[in-house]
Amino acid sequence: MNSKIYLDNNATTKCDDEVLKAMLPYLKEEYGNPNSIYSFGKEVKDKITLARKNVAKLLNANESEIVFTSCASESNVTAIMSAIRNNPLKKHIITTKVEHASIIETMKYLESIGYRITYLSVDTQGKIDLEELRDSITDDTLLIAIMMANNELGNIFPIKEIGKIAKEHSILFHCDSVQAIGKIKIDVKEMNIDTLSMSGHKIHAPKGIGVLYVKSGIPFTPLIFGHQEENKRGGTENVPYIIGLGKAVEILLKEQDEVNNKLEYLRNKLEKDIANNILDIHIYGDLENRLPNTTNIAFKGVKGEEILLVLESYNIYIGTGSACNSKLAEPSHVLVACNANLDEYSPIRISLGKYNTEEDIDNFVKKLSNVVNMLRNLKGNKKYEE
Amino acid sequence: MNSKIYLDNNATTKCDDEVLKAMLPYLKEEYGNPNSIYSFGKEVKDKITLARKNVAKLLNANESEIVFTSCASESNVTAIMSAIRNNPLKKHIITTKVEHASIIETMKYLESIGYRITYLSVDTQGKIDLEELRDSITDDTLLIAIMMANNELGNIFPIKEIGKIAKEHSILFHCDSVQAIGKIKIDVKEMNIDTLSMSGHKIHAPKGIGVLYVKSGIPFTPLIFGHQEENKRGGTENVPYIIGLGKAVEILLKEQDEVNNKLEYLRNKLEKDIANNILDIHIYGDLENRLPNTTNIAFKGVKGEEILLVLESYNIYIGTGSACNSKLAEPSHVLVACNANLDEYSPIRISLGKYNTEEDIDNFVKKLSNVVNMLRNLKGNKKYEE
Repeated sequence: MNSKIYLDNNATTKCDDEVLKAMLPYLKEEYGNPNSIYSFGKEVKDKITLARKNVAKLLNANESEIVFTSCASESNVTAIMSAIRNNPLKKHIITTKVEHASIIETMKYLESIGYRITYLSVDTQGKIDLEELRDSITDDTLLIAIMMANNELGNIFPIKEIGKIAKEHSILFHCDSVQAIGKIKIDVKEMNIDTLSMSGHKIHAPKGIGVLYVKSGIPFTPLIFGHQEENKRGGTENVPYIIGLGKAVEILLKEQDEVNNKLEYLRNKLEKDIANNILDIHIYGDLENRLPNTTNIAFKGVKGEEILLVLESYNIYIGTGSACNSKLAEPSHVLVACNANLDEYSPIRISLGKYNTEEDIDNFVKKLSNVVNMLRNLKGNKKYEE
Repeated sequence: MNSKIYLDNNATTKCDDEVLKAMLPYLKEEYGNPNSIYSFGKEVKDKITLARKNVAKLLNANESEIVFTSCASESNVTAIMSAIRNNPLKKHIITTKVEHASIIETMKYLESIGYRITYLSVDTQGKIDLEELRDSITDDTLLIAIMMANNELGNIFPIKEIGKIAKEHSILFHCDSVQAIGKIKIDVKEMNIDTLSMSGHKIHAPKGIGVLYVKSGIPFTPLIFGHQEENKRGGTENVPYIIGLGKAVEILLKEQDEVNNKLEYLRNKLEKDIANNILDIHIYGDLENRLPNTTNIAFKGVKGEEILLVLESYNIYIGTGSACNSKLAEPSHVLVACNANLDEYSPIRISLGKYNTEEDIDNFVKKLSNVVNMLRNLKGNKKYEE
């Protein structure tokens, strides 16, 4: 079997060896409960504080504004539910059609209990229109929830402008920043973000740890009640993962500029090489304003899912949409919102990570060309004709 | 420094080496997202299914009734919020004064939005009165939330009888079973439990993984929305910890009877040895109906916290109450509910675990006798007089 080429880093990333090393003592001998009054647990508490400092630095936030959660989905729901619980007289929320499932499903629940939700549309490139956002605001609007970067297309949304609009209207602004973390600079103050979510497993920490940033002074009600995290999030702290996330962020702070330059170089090379080798392609998304690691690309007449499954047999892993949706075998809600012609141009998503090499890209493009040609020939042979 | 004697297993437990070994591949090479459609993630999915089977077996539940969460606090809040969301016309909940903070704090929140909460009282031994429970039920009662065993006293509550009462009145019954798991046999069917929570880190899995059992057919609304866990709990699965929990439960299923016999022997020996060596002691709790591993014991005139801090200097770790409350430096709400004379009899909690040995107990009792005598002498010298 060939060695694995993993190109689905927007779905999840490999845990960094240094992160694992930082975590291991806390999965072994250092198992004290950080809420204990004896020192065995207290030493652990100090390490948690260090992790919190690192995360705060990454976001340009204060330590006291960082709440550790179990995942970005929890952070998203916590932010939204806190917003509605602290604004009981208002019943309107603005979001987009291309948010993550944890946001969309929460909005559906809120609709079921009487909230009005505006889902901003996107154009064919997946861009939102700030005029539509402004026009949607009413006196009843309590929250704007818009992601920083889209997981499928890589599009970066105009967060600073959205934050400004929210602030002008005294509306809370929640930003799901899962895909943006580490790939673009985030400054919660400059961006006027009130609450922000991030996840560890997209930045080489494990699956099962997230962060909720809550701007100091914002009224806040927990989702999971209890005494931990300064009464903002109950439940015994996931000590190993918090410390692992702290290490992952420490690494990011050191290497993110260099890594992102590399990722952008590799992604651009990838797209160029594909264009030079395969006819009739289409790249989805906002090509002027994308994450450096992502491309969403379609090959006329071939289904993305077919490409994915054949590549898998070569030990190459790509995505077709959000992993959180991919098992549903439904068309991507993001591409549907872009009014994409999915019958002709059904895409694959390639999302690079720091462990990818130029050799990976070269090998991938060769295999991809063969696979697309093979599938197109088979279609010509009517074998896979639908 | 002497080797550590850890006697605070109700706060948290050391991760079992076998559990860590089972988890490690999923923190290293097997990092695929289980929601992916390619096999790299799918293999992970199979392991999650195996973990789910083990947990279901432990509870006598069906696999489809098991939802993995990030902690028992999340499970508790999820169960309560789901109950109220699916019974919008009823506004009364019955719980006890001695529940875990995640339950008590959720109840306080619900009171703030108009719910009426009955907190059942306990007697001086921490026992509840089923007559008081029956008398508290009204047509407006939607939920009874009572723990299976108390974390501080070790008391085991009459869950089967409570389940029967709840069923007779068509009221949902949620049972926080965190401290009972592995220490007593649990059968959700026989006990008529509708929802149940448990936690990994009390049974030698890591901190940061929990379970919510949801009886098949019960209307359910998630707390964290999303597509994972059959739409019952959003967020990318914490694959390593779920697999670790599965292994911890597999081990429990094999060894729990033997371990519990040992724990009960050691706990009884501990209490006897203390009684033989130290004058004027008082054991809190329901001595007829306790977890095999727990004793809550006080030494007249000496504060439990003082004992804890001196023992710490000998590398011996005990508790004074719930770890989740212990930092608050407030008297234990459980002992206050028992109307305990905390000025004279301020307790320590000793909670044994499977790694404790008879030698641990012998060494501990020697040190404890010295420490209690020393503190009593100091008090006699007016040095610590308050």
